[in-house]
Amino acid sequence: MSDLVKEFNEYRVRMNEVILSKNNLVMKRLWNLDTNTYEEGVLNKQTKEMLGLVASMVLRCDDCIKYHLGKCFELGITTEQLYEIFAVANIVGGTIVIPHKRRAAEYWEELMIEVFNTKGSYTKTLYLQRTFQHEYNNK
Amino acid sequence: MSDLVKEFNEYRVRMNEVILSKNNLVMKRLWNLDTNTYEEGVLNKQTKEMLGLVASMVLRCDDCIKYHLGKCFELGITTEQLYEIFAVANIVGGTIVIPHKRRAAEYWEELMIEVFNTKGSYTKTLYLQRTFQHEYNNK
Amino acid sequence: MSDLVKEFNEYRVRMNEVILSKNNLVMKRLWNLDTNTYEEGVLNKQTKEMLGLVASMVLRCDDCIKYHLGKCFELGITTEQLYEIFAVANIVGGTIVIPHKRRAAEYWEELMIEVFNTKGSYTKTLYLQRTFQHEYNNK
Amino acid sequence: MSDLVKEFNEYRVRMNEVILSKNNLVMKRLWNLDTNTYEEGVLNKQTKEMLGLVASMVLRCDDCIKYHLGKCFELGITTEQLYEIFAVANIVGGTIVIPHKRRAAEYWEELMIEVFNTKGSYTKTLYLQRTFQHEYNNK
Amino acid sequence: MSDLVKEFNEYRVRMNEVILSKNNLVMKRLWNLDTNTYEEGVLNKQTKEMLGLVASMVLRCDDCIKYHLGKCFELGITTEQLYEIFAVANIVGGTIVIPHKRRAAEYWEELMIEVFNTKGSYTKTLYLQRTFQHEYNNK
Amino acid sequence: MSDLVKEFNEYRVRMNEVILSKNNLVMKRLWNLDTNTYEEGVLNKQTKEMLGLVASMVLRCDDCIKYHLGKCFELGITTEQLYEIFAVANIVGGTIVIPHKRRAAEYWEELMIEVFNTKGSYTKTLYLQRTFQHEYNNK
Repeated sequence: MSDLVKEFNEYRVRMNEVILSKNNLVMKRLWNLDTNTYEEGVLNKQTKEMLGLVASMVLRCDDCIKYHLGKCFELGITTEQLYEIFAVANIVGGTIVIPHKRRAAEYWEELMIEVFNTKGSYTKTLYLQRTFQHEYNNK
Repeated sequence: MSDLVKEFNEYRVRMNEVILSKNNLVMKRLWNLDTNTYEEGVLNKQTKEMLGLVASMVLRCDDCIKYHLGKCFELGITTEQLYEIFAVANIVGGTIVIPHKRRAAEYWEELMIEVFNTKGSYTKTLYLQRTFQHEYNNK
Repeated sequence: MSDLVKEFNEYRVRMNEVILSKNNLVMKRLWNLDTNTYEEGVLNKQTKEMLGLVASMVLRCDDCIKYHLGKCFELGITTEQLYEIFAVANIVGGTIVIPHKRRAAEYWEELMIEVFNTKGSYTKTLYLQRTFQHEYNNK
Repeated sequence: MSDLVKEFNEYRVRMNEVILSKNNLVMKRLWNLDTNTYEEGVLNKQTKEMLGLVASMVLRCDDCIKYHLGKCFELGITTEQLYEIFAVANIVGGTIVIPHKRRAAEYWEELMIEVFNTKGSYTKTLYLQRTFQHEYNNK
Repeated sequence: MSDLVKEFNEYRVRMNEVILSKNNLVMKRLWNLDTNTYEEGVLNKQTKEMLGLVASMVLRCDDCIKYHLGKCFELGITTEQLYEIFAVANIVGGTIVIPHKRRAAEYWEELMIEVFNTKGSYTKTLYLQRTFQHEYNNK
Repeated sequence: MSDLVKEFNEYRVRMNEVILSKNNLVMKRLWNLDTNTYEEGVLNKQTKEMLGLVASMVLRCDDCIKYHLGKCFELGITTEQLYEIFAVANIVGGTIVIPHKRRAAEYWEELMIEVFNTKGSYTKTLYLQRTFQHEYNNK
């Protein structure tokens, strides 16, 4: 796994453990709720992750952006789709969003590079991408 | 048309005219670009308007929310889908978003009531809603 | 009840009903969680409402501010204490907070006036204020 | 004076009095400091009010915008200059700034109309505008 | 002292010196005022630092959070109390606050670890914690 | 060139290339528009860069601040002028802006140090500074 992706994920997991070990009930429930929010509903998972991503971009939270980029990647969002999400975020939120977009673009490239180095997951992701793009285009 | 919807639209049109009459080139181009952003691309119009809506909600801009609600309504987004967008905005943006959601909910109801009073557009909207929901569910 | 306070509360209740009638599960749970957050814990209710108020002020949400002002008032926070909370919000958040403070000051005065017109609740509130201030000063 | 301008100024003065009557020392000093900030320094007053205006626009505070519009108007900023400030705010802050710009444009028109109705101040303002523009262009 | 805490404090001191060496009067006064804001008043210091902390969290400023964590620690706020402040910030500000909470949690652990390595200050802090908790619980 | 300045510029250029290589038309146009915004108009370039800087400071975007600091430096803004811009940003945006000001102050010092190491550009910058200050004072 690329260092950027790995570091982000490891720090995230490690600190979440610290936080949840304090047994604050409100926070535990909020975090569960956070997971529920992005589950398949009348909107599908892809759409929900796109919503989470654009919200994170206009609020300019790099770590939130990285998290949703990871999810979008897993769910087969294509680079072309991603940049249309970036465009909405940039128009709504202004040029102040651009530095966050730079870091997002870097992270996305890392996710892509990783795929080329790990053949199994590459195949799987490509399959998802094709599938999603196909369905999407045939709507 | 409901007073709330009518007032919003009229004020918007009137002040846009004032602003554009000043011939500031940067602003003219930005506004054109704003229109282009939401046009059909590799993401469809519905998805882009949902992105615009969630971005407006977490940035807590009532007028931007109203604008995108109008567009979502025209494009056949259903109430159930809308509230899933609201849920993402509320989880990402926190309870600070709730007062804006109240005003959004009020505006959406007004858009709905309008439909019941104007049979022609009702039929058209319902058709769009059924179509979109159908396609969405069959993906 | 003063018109300002009454209107705020009535609109809030009415729109909350609309929103909750849509049965979005994430939002229902988030709202319950919101209530739990301000319940007595290792921090007392007064402190938690003060925290909610200062957070609402720096995020500049008038309706959130009004809600927490109502709660602070019920819990016996004094005007002098309130203005120290305002001062923190103003220093952290800058002069951009001032217009919200004006509306907050107006709402607080309305809450006060109401007390003088409703003797029963006046006595009760004064009692709470005295009690809280007393305990606070004797820590 | 136009109703919009008059209402804004009167509410502002009235609520400032309420706030300052509470004798919170931090807030009193902060407000004095606020006044000092915009006084002539190595940057002139016009530049400082433009800075205050653009900061208020990207932070999307309508009342702060109105206040600085009033000051910019008094100091002879022209409509053309104003719209270049608006353009910077719109590019940096994104389309989310547009609704605030609409209200700003409306307020500015009101300030202008007022001038045509009050000949004395009109002459004075025009003089300032010509002077400032002249000096600015000859730099 | 832990590296994280030490680096933060040293950079802060060094850059404050650079800034204040420029003799900008407005900034000098604002910084003095900042200090006054958190001094004992009708609200005690602990409450004021909690207010400063929650405001910094919802505005998502890591360095401001670290500063107030340091102060809260010195004043004997307990971990359990801290996480109730975190919960308010998380509910008001949404999941966008979570990455900042991770860094806050890490910093707090560093402050704690430091105490175990420096026996003198450990005793002093524990004393403050016990005292404050005791008084707080007996209100 | 100082490491801080060099790293910032190199990363910026490298990631801009990645982003623009994706051929998203909205983003390409927005970036062109961004450049146009700061070109000489009825407001001169210096004023526009100051506006961009203060907007970036109150929105607390470190990279945007660095970018405009670089531009302000090239255009001959003096340190004294810069700190008056900082003061406006600090008063409008509050103490939450201070950590960003620290990083801005550090970056400015780096830009200055660079000048002393590169005699040619030093002379040029000094000339610009004197010229601008002179014209500014004689307005």
